[in-house]
Amino acid sequence: MSLTIYDTTLRDGAQQEGISFSVQDKLKIAGLLDRLGVDVIEGGWPGSNPKDAEFFQRATDLGLDHATLSAFGSTRHAGRHVEDDPGLGALLGAQTEAVALFGKASAVHVRRVLGVTLEENLRMIEDSVAYLKEHGRFVIYDAEHVFDGYCDNPDYALATLEAAASAGADVLVLCDTNGGSLPNEIAALTAAAAKRFSVPIGIHAHNDSEMAVANSLAALQAGASHVQGTVNGMGERCGNANLCSILPALRLKMGHAEILPDRLERLTETARAISEIANLQPNLNLPYVGESAFAHKGGMHVDALAKYTRSYHHIDPRLVGNHSRVLVSELSGKGSIAYKIRECGLDIPTNGPRGRRVLTQIKDLESRGFQFDGAEGSVELLLQRSSPSYQAPFELMGFHVLVNRQEDGRLSAEAAVKLRVGEEVIHTAAEGNGPVNALDTAVRKALLPIFPRLASIHLTDYKVRILDSAGGTAAQTRVLITTSGEERCWSTVGCSANIIEASWIALGDALEYAVTIAGAGTPRTVEARG
Amino acid sequence: MSLTIYDTTLRDGAQQEGISFSVQDKLKIAGLLDRLGVDVIEGGWPGSNPKDAEFFQRATDLGLDHATLSAFGSTRHAGRHVEDDPGLGALLGAQTEAVALFGKASAVHVRRVLGVTLEENLRMIEDSVAYLKEHGRFVIYDAEHVFDGYCDNPDYALATLEAAASAGADVLVLCDTNGGSLPNEIAALTAAAAKRFSVPIGIHAHNDSEMAVANSLAALQAGASHVQGTVNGMGERCGNANLCSILPALRLKMGHAEILPDRLERLTETARAISEIANLQPNLNLPYVGESAFAHKGGMHVDALAKYTRSYHHIDPRLVGNHSRVLVSELSGKGSIAYKIRECGLDIPTNGPRGRRVLTQIKDLESRGFQFDGAEGSVELLLQRSSPSYQAPFELMGFHVLVNRQEDGRLSAEAAVKLRVGEEVIHTAAEGNGPVNALDTAVRKALLPIFPRLASIHLTDYKVRILDSAGGTAAQTRVLITTSGEERCWSTVGCSANIIEASWIALGDALEYAVTIAGAGTPRTVEARG
Repeated sequence: MSLTIYDTTLRDGAQQEGISFSVQDKLKIAGLLDRLGVDVIEGGWPGSNPKDAEFFQRATDLGLDHATLSAFGSTRHAGRHVEDDPGLGALLGAQTEAVALFGKASAVHVRRVLGVTLEENLRMIEDSVAYLKEHGRFVIYDAEHVFDGYCDNPDYALATLEAAASAGADVLVLCDTNGGSLPNEIAALTAAAAKRFSVPIGIHAHNDSEMAVANSLAALQAGASHVQGTVNGMGERCGNANLCSILPALRLKMGHAEILPDRLERLTETARAISEIANLQPNLNLPYVGESAFAHKGGMHVDALAKYTRSYHHIDPRLVGNHSRVLVSELSGKGSIAYKIRECGLDIPTNGPRGRRVLTQIKDLESRGFQFDGAEGSVELLLQRSSPSYQAPFELMGFHVLVNRQEDGRLSAEAAVKLRVGEEVIHTAAEGNGPVNALDTAVRKALLPIFPRLASIHLTDYKVRILDSAGGTAAQTRVLITTSGEERCWSTVGCSANIIEASWIALGDALEYAVTIAGAGTPRTVEARG
Repeated sequence: MSLTIYDTTLRDGAQQEGISFSVQDKLKIAGLLDRLGVDVIEGGWPGSNPKDAEFFQRATDLGLDHATLSAFGSTRHAGRHVEDDPGLGALLGAQTEAVALFGKASAVHVRRVLGVTLEENLRMIEDSVAYLKEHGRFVIYDAEHVFDGYCDNPDYALATLEAAASAGADVLVLCDTNGGSLPNEIAALTAAAAKRFSVPIGIHAHNDSEMAVANSLAALQAGASHVQGTVNGMGERCGNANLCSILPALRLKMGHAEILPDRLERLTETARAISEIANLQPNLNLPYVGESAFAHKGGMHVDALAKYTRSYHHIDPRLVGNHSRVLVSELSGKGSIAYKIRECGLDIPTNGPRGRRVLTQIKDLESRGFQFDGAEGSVELLLQRSSPSYQAPFELMGFHVLVNRQEDGRLSAEAAVKLRVGEEVIHTAAEGNGPVNALDTAVRKALLPIFPRLASIHLTDYKVRILDSAGGTAAQTRVLITTSGEERCWSTVGCSANIIEASWIALGDALEYAVTIAGAGTPRTVEARG
């Protein structure tokens, strides 16, 4: 039986705390999902908000290559005719080939939440499915709370599935709505349903027990052939089943040839692009697609990887478009620097004096509190700077920062900076929310006229760590900054007993990287790189 | 068979990118883990770095209530006698009751990574286990890569386990080192091992396939009785098995009575405190313990929850010390304040208006970015200040802070402060390593003549967290300060878009706590407390 990948990032994924997609965001994501090769894209719940209705209107222009669109909605209201039900009307109005219709499968929910009789709920399911079928839709029936319902009242749960199937539903999706089930429970009901019904069975899992991926695979192993999930596992509470972990497992561990290798190679870039659109802090530890997923810190692992590439990787990271990283740190040897040089695509003999010089420099800086294992941007700059022909795009000559709190509690922060760019000396000042923001603002004010593309570069994270905790406020301070450009992001590090100076060092590296490596420099500067 | 919970947050968890625990951090975490009720705490790898060796030296003073300490290390080097092996020496030197010894179980790894014969590896395992047993240790044998090794060469993988068992290992732990196995593969080998060996079997899972929790539970269902993991699933690459998801599943879904309810209620606070200590951005979506784990956005879910509380929750969040964010947590909130009042030994009716007032204040401050989870000192001060008779020992009227970097790179930081103590106004200034240190120094300079015992009060930790990462350097900043007095230490919190102000708020609380609660005030101030 062929496998259907059903993505609900745009509907269930958008329920995650802090996520709010614009229609434009949703259109962009739909395009990315199509390129990734998912079979069905659930675009939204047209009956619940006008934004989703607008999405479906505009989605017809998307020209999707492979994927089908689906709209989500619920069974008719109690005591209403299907023709008069506004929800079903909106669902048809979305003009999608497929619809996902959810109905209640748990007797407790029917009585206590819906407040209707068990019989009426069965008729609601039947009528609604039949009505959508009459209108030519491919009907995916989502059985909400069916695992909990099956525990409490198995006969009724199966009767609801029967109602949907007999009315013509094309897929019966078993939903672990509260995410509380364990794989053996998922497998048991899935196997029973697959045996009883001739239509394909689907699985919709939530991650409240950290089981969503395992539960989805357990269902597929037990006879399901349709799997629902979201990119990066976005979703309400603890999220939905993570398609970015399910797709590679299906192809690389379970032998499902429907997941095509050239699509799978887009997984990492798709996951990161959607995370950016959602404006989420990237989760480094995400399986398969995370920045750290194939990263190694300990010297022992790095040595082992050099001897046998599979030694600490469960798959070849290139298969999912990710890559292996070595976190350069004081524990590293020459091997890690050589690895880094290759990773950055630099033209430096990996075992020559330049690589050794940079390694010595890294060790020296780390002994003074720098930490490079989260700061590849700074490492890449150290490597670039080791070239005799490298020219820094700007140089900080000095600054002062003043923070003032008056007796009425009013606060101000101001920074003055003096920078040299080529022959030019720029002296300017700015205010900010705080001292580091004032410094950042002043430096950008000085550089923007010369490097206008810095306007699209943003600081996305700023972390501070106190190193020698016993030193209290006099301790060495390490600042780690993450910066995002149009296509990539990089991290840089600074360290000093003075937090302002530590911030400046990391900030200076972040901006220098933007100009010399990430392409925010002027054409003249870009030429100077070669 | 009884169940053993083995925590490796301090060793394998510390391998996570960006984590770097100080010895002080590790001691604090060990205390929290003991309170949570884990059975064994793996403190580090004493042979690999001096910090871990220091931890074990100092850990003897921890006075753990329930947990046993374990040190981690590897089998002896090839061609060396156990007595001469520095790694085994360091392992014994840690003086722990238990040791975790890892050895290679995969024939490919033995040949390609270790570069020794299969026979020699078996002798390395045997000799090392026997040597540690001779020295009276409880030996937990970690079979690295055993699942991959079992696939490639099952006889050899089992022979390595046999070598450890026959030499006297007390537990055989099956490690899915690369995190690539699926639950059915985990269950198969675990069942085979449990059948073949009479010693208890353990499971050590990594999350590279998003299966670490499912794999751990699958192993326990298949006959394992020892489970290794970390708090919040911290760890290298995609992390280790998450004990915060395993413990509640064991108790609430699999009926393991060894996990005590009153320990489980500490799960959320423990998870968050350790995340704070690690200076990690908290992951809202973490199952069971995340801020969003029981939060509801959709109106439909909120309605349903009002009708039937189990409708969109898989468990009662209070069982793990978390709370639902929709059922406006008035109740759980009051409960935690009552808990705090009792904890501080204060004479305030736990359900009266004062408690409620402080709760409202805390909620208001938390909505502005404060977080009191890791800042009991500030909470205790809020409670004290709610007394009509409370008098603040000093009041900050204003300050300014100036940081200057000259063209020759020389830096200076200076602060001027104006404070009121009783009727007196003190205006003074000081220099420091950085702006916060200058402010700290100036305030102490002002207060010391009046409260001379402040001289023995030290700031021992100072942490900074950026809250809205998308805001970069303009984001809200939270500062957490830990202060040590002669007999105790306390943590205080400050929050502002300006890091200097945030630091001041936390610093002010730290000093006020020192004077009014920790006994650094003059006798007059101490009397005023009663």
